[in-house]
Amino acid sequence: MIELYDDERLDYLLAEELRIIQSPSVFAFSLDTVLLARFVYVPIQKGNLIDLCTGNGVIPLLLSQRTKGNITGVEIQERIYNMAKRSIQYNQLENRIQMIHGDIKDIPMQLGHGKFDIVTCNPPYFPTPSDAEINKNQHLAIARHEIYCTLEDVVRVSSQLVRAGGKVAFVHRPGRLLDIVTLMRKYRLEPKRLQFVYPKLGKEANTILIEGIKDGSPDLKILPPLIVYNDQGDYTKELHQILYGNS
Amino acid sequence: MIELYDDERLDYLLAEELRIIQSPSVFAFSLDTVLLARFVYVPIQKGNLIDLCTGNGVIPLLLSQRTKGNITGVEIQERIYNMAKRSIQYNQLENRIQMIHGDIKDIPMQLGHGKFDIVTCNPPYFPTPSDAEINKNQHLAIARHEIYCTLEDVVRVSSQLVRAGGKVAFVHRPGRLLDIVTLMRKYRLEPKRLQFVYPKLGKEANTILIEGIKDGSPDLKILPPLIVYNDQGDYTKELHQILYGNS
Repeated sequence: MIELYDDERLDYLLAEELRIIQSPSVFAFSLDTVLLARFVYVPIQKGNLIDLCTGNGVIPLLLSQRTKGNITGVEIQERIYNMAKRSIQYNQLENRIQMIHGDIKDIPMQLGHGKFDIVTCNPPYFPTPSDAEINKNQHLAIARHEIYCTLEDVVRVSSQLVRAGGKVAFVHRPGRLLDIVTLMRKYRLEPKRLQFVYPKLGKEANTILIEGIKDGSPDLKILPPLIVYNDQGDYTKELHQILYGNS
Repeated sequence: MIELYDDERLDYLLAEELRIIQSPSVFAFSLDTVLLARFVYVPIQKGNLIDLCTGNGVIPLLLSQRTKGNITGVEIQERIYNMAKRSIQYNQLENRIQMIHGDIKDIPMQLGHGKFDIVTCNPPYFPTPSDAEINKNQHLAIARHEIYCTLEDVVRVSSQLVRAGGKVAFVHRPGRLLDIVTLMRKYRLEPKRLQFVYPKLGKEANTILIEGIKDGSPDLKILPPLIVYNDQGDYTKELHQILYGNS
């Protein structure tokens, strides 16, 4: 049994045999997050993985189906951390997924440097706007805007947490591509795989997926384009496969 | 009338009513070059345009059909410069296209700084290999390898030649994307439009097209993906349109 608060729902998590607590007024996961969980390289048999700014824990939950390793999620908002915690309990994954309620900037001190094989993060996308413009819903504002952590914080902390040769993957908007690659090189995360997500053929990309290797050698590949919708407005075959598998 | 040397041919230049001198052993233009000539922003009525590492002049010839402005081409290899010169004469474009035989590094001193609205360049793609590995055909080696100019030379010279607010466009390989954007920012050419060329859907990109604005503000757009071939191995409709127009 599980307790649901306010407008929370216990949603199915795609094709996985998993359920996840979501709430329209507090936090619901996005397509971008799912794409990141599918994009990142994952060791199958073992390893230490960590997801920063984890929200309701969708990336740890999805990764738990791709690896037998240990997964940690970090979320700064207690209300949302609590949703992730209950979802993990509901799915009986407490022995494989550990949730930490805290600020990502404190995590390297807490867990040590170079201890993770894989780091993922879907960071807040937008610079902090003025008080007048900011989303009045504080939960959504913190998830979307660089209020508690900047892109540089995210890249620096990721680099501290990952071991040499380990992989770090982010999802972000095309407008920040140059910032993200510049910061990755600054913190010795050499970009190796870059994929652009286009809403349709003939449209500009609206999302980027990027993976780097700590202390890797320069050799960037641009993966095949990911097209989300076909001309009829349905998911393309490829996206359907990514989201729901063969079923 | 026109004189053709050795294995030179007088080829049709796509759908344009133009002819161009080519030679398999000295220089023949590539798809990349044509894509750059179609990609770059061009002022229609007037302006000063310059194409560096122009080869047999294919970019100036194609641009002459898109603008009434004045176009300059610079080529370091006399043999190839001479092919371009004869093609321009054959097409009776001497009053609109000027060819310079010289080293691009000397051009800002020769023509002045900030005098051009548009700069294009399809630079040599490959670092200079050892003597053992290099192409024995010196003409092809110079066009393909960074023998006479490095990527940094190309970006620095382009930045010197273009006026503030003017545009600079390059074509290159994905493996050099990070170098090119880093160099562009170093020389105050802010990347604004980036397009990836994929040989087929489902394949990694093999070419990048990038345009920056001198002293522009950061705001990068990732243009729709350009897919070259369809599943049958024919040009896609879009590429056919780019190469041959509506005909």
